[in-house]
Amino acid sequence: MSYITQKKVAMVVKQMLIAKDFDTITVTQIMHQAQVRRQSFYDYFRDKYDVLTWIYNDEIKAVLNDNLDYEHWTLVLTHTLRYFQNNRDFYIKVFAIHDQNAPEAVIAQHIESLIRTVYTDISAQAHLTTSDAQAAFSQRVIAMGLVAEVKRWLVTDTQATLDQEIQLLQNYLNDSIQGLLANHRQ
Amino acid sequence: MSYITQKKVAMVVKQMLIAKDFDTITVTQIMHQAQVRRQSFYDYFRDKYDVLTWIYNDEIKAVLNDNLDYEHWTLVLTHTLRYFQNNRDFYIKVFAIHDQNAPEAVIAQHIESLIRTVYTDISAQAHLTTSDAQAAFSQRVIAMGLVAEVKRWLVTDTQATLDQEIQLLQNYLNDSIQGLLANHRQ
Repeated sequence: MSYITQKKVAMVVKQMLIAKDFDTITVTQIMHQAQVRRQSFYDYFRDKYDVLTWIYNDEIKAVLNDNLDYEHWTLVLTHTLRYFQNNRDFYIKVFAIHDQNAPEAVIAQHIESLIRTVYTDISAQAHLTTSDAQAAFSQRVIAMGLVAEVKRWLVTDTQATLDQEIQLLQNYLNDSIQGLLANHRQ
Repeated sequence: MSYITQKKVAMVVKQMLIAKDFDTITVTQIMHQAQVRRQSFYDYFRDKYDVLTWIYNDEIKAVLNDNLDYEHWTLVLTHTLRYFQNNRDFYIKVFAIHDQNAPEAVIAQHIESLIRTVYTDISAQAHLTTSDAQAAFSQRVIAMGLVAEVKRWLVTDTQATLDQEIQLLQNYLNDSIQGLLANHRQ
């Protein structure tokens, strides 16, 4: 299966998930709609969950232009939130999947790597570093809070606008990490 | 149904949930095992979910001695974490329930009220206040991170000890809220 075919299958799954529940989607349906031979599904995807993870990785990479390490974290945060908002219906369904293979774990890992970037940026600017267990712990909890907030923001009808949400989250991250740096300077 | 009977029913549900999946537990089974007339269940509980919420409220109140507003927040945090650890098998099952009525929402609200106490304590001590939308937003995200971390800590086998976890969370809360206060002083 080429990238083109993989993408075709992924887009079918994305459309299907917006319209129906994940449990009711079968590989046979997916491949029928994508007009690809059923058995080749397993050449590239482990299972249905794997397609969702693939979609996130593929699309977020395009959105961030592979620039996670170079772009300023406030821009990465903006691009990431805008991507979630543009794909709101899809991610509301994705975040509602709670099985062991649910793609949320992969998204959470990616957000955690974003938080490490934020931490590195802010600590470099403040000329402060911490390298203890506390810093790793706090970065993880901050990342989990961010994931939970993004989910809440997506599903809440009376949501803050994208710009408001970005500003609130940016301040939150800035404050939390400056607090961490201030109290655990090496 | 008296409090005694309510508690009896609740303890049956608690034991049952540790042994089997929530989906497979029926009201008939519960009341049979509690030796209470089936129909009276609905005099005091809306549904099965409501029993779990009742257990949390009843037990956490006893653990905290109704002192949430008077006891220092570090002690409240300690008592809360110890309670979760002592009831680990039960809460692993409770947190695995993802339906709309899942008790996690009530637990999260309670943790959020704890965070407001932490915020009030630290801001009084620092002689700083903020009263803007940012403070409310950040307190909620900090609370969601705390709930997610407590869940992670409970289900992870290679978990930190209670004392280590308390210390890490205490520092995390302290740092985050001091960061918030430092950057948004009124």
